[in-house]
Amino acid sequence: MYDEKYPSILLQNAVEAIGSLPGVGRRSALKLALYLLRQPEENVRHFTSSIDRLRSDVKYCSVCRMISDGDVCGICSDEKRDRKTICVVESVRDVMNIEKTRQYTGVYHVLGGIISPIDGTGPSDLTIDELAGRVSALVSEYPPEEVEVIFALSGEVEGETTAFYIYRKIAPFGIKVSTLARGLGYGADIDYADELTLGRSIMNRQIFKP
Amino acid sequence: MYDEKYPSILLQNAVEAIGSLPGVGRRSALKLALYLLRQPEENVRHFTSSIDRLRSDVKYCSVCRMISDGDVCGICSDEKRDRKTICVVESVRDVMNIEKTRQYTGVYHVLGGIISPIDGTGPSDLTIDELAGRVSALVSEYPPEEVEVIFALSGEVEGETTAFYIYRKIAPFGIKVSTLARGLGYGADIDYADELTLGRSIMNRQIFKP
Repeated sequence: MYDEKYPSILLQNAVEAIGSLPGVGRRSALKLALYLLRQPEENVRHFTSSIDRLRSDVKYCSVCRMISDGDVCGICSDEKRDRKTICVVESVRDVMNIEKTRQYTGVYHVLGGIISPIDGTGPSDLTIDELAGRVSALVSEYPPEEVEVIFALSGEVEGETTAFYIYRKIAPFGIKVSTLARGLGYGADIDYADELTLGRSIMNRQIFKP
Repeated sequence: MYDEKYPSILLQNAVEAIGSLPGVGRRSALKLALYLLRQPEENVRHFTSSIDRLRSDVKYCSVCRMISDGDVCGICSDEKRDRKTICVVESVRDVMNIEKTRQYTGVYHVLGGIISPIDGTGPSDLTIDELAGRVSALVSEYPPEEVEVIFALSGEVEGETTAFYIYRKIAPFGIKVSTLARGLGYGADIDYADELTLGRSIMNRQIFKP
C-alpha cells in the first residue's frame, strides 16, 4: 500500500520550508505550496527572488542601523529631522511602527536586539558602542542639555536591563535621557500598541530615573 | 519629513510578494519578511530554492496527473492498488486528504480544476480526455461492470456540472459510476446541519444497521 505523507519529495521540501516560518502551520504550508505550484513560473521566480534580494542586498544605515537602500537611510538624511534627539529601539519594525504615528521628528538608533542572557544576546551583539559614539559626537557639537536619548524598548525585564545598561554608558555625557511614557501597559509589546497610545507615549516621554 | 511606508524598496518588494499569498495579510507579510532578514543567508536560500525547485522540477504522473517525483506516481505504481477503481478529484490536495483516511484502495484521476464558466475553466482545460482514455483502456481489458469511476467532487454547482459532463463521456462504456455519500457528518449535530444537507439526508436515508 502506498503510504507516503507527500506524493513528492519536492513538495515535501517546499512544505517543510514554508512551514518553518513563524505562525505558519503544516496545513497552511501545504496550501501555500500548492498555490505557488499553480502560479506561472515567472511569478514564483519573482516571489523567491524578491526574498533572496532582500536578504542578500539589503543595506543598513551607517548612522542608525535602520534598513536602508543607501548608505544613509531616509530618516537620517532628512534635514527636517532633529538629529539631536535619538530614539533607541530594538528593531526595524519598531522604527516603522513609531514612524506610522507621525508624532516623532527626531532620529533613531536600531540596537538590532535586546540584552537577553537566555537568548545569548549580550551588549556586544548590539549597536551600543555606535550609539555612544553618536552621543559623543553630538555633545562635541551641541550643549549636552540639547541632546536627548529616548528609550523606546519593551517594558519587560530585557528592555529595562538594556535601557539601564545603555544609561550607564551615556549618562556621563550629561545629556537628557528619557523613556517612553507608559500609557501602554507594563509588559506590553510595542508591536501590539495602538497608534494613538504609542504616539502619545513618545510625546509624553518621561525622564529616565534608574 | 521622511514619509515613506517602507524604509527600503527591497523590503517593500519582499513584503508585497509575501503578502500576495492567499491568507497572508500585510502585517504578517512584514513580520515574515523581517523574520527572513534575520535568518542566515543559506537558510533563506534553502527556503527560496525549495520553492523554485518545486515549481520548476515537479512532475505529474502520466497516468493520473498527481504530483510525482517520477513518470508514474507512487499510487499508480503500487501493485496493491485496484487499478479498475478510479476516484476523480479536482486537485492534488483532494488526493492527499483521501489518502489520509486510509480507507481507499483504488487509484485516482486529478482533473486539475473544475468546470467553472465564471473562472473561465472549460472541459478542455481539465484532464477529462485522459480520464476517458483510461476508462476506454480498462474496458478493453476487463468486463465493464468491474470498472468503477467515483466522483469525489465538490457538492456545489461547479462540482455537479463537472460530474455530469464527465458522466456523459464515460457512461457509454457501461461502467459503474458512483459519487461520494452525502449526508450529515459522522458525529455531526442536527442542530448545526444546513437545510439542504439535512433535507437530502432524510430523503437518502440508509438502512439502520446497529
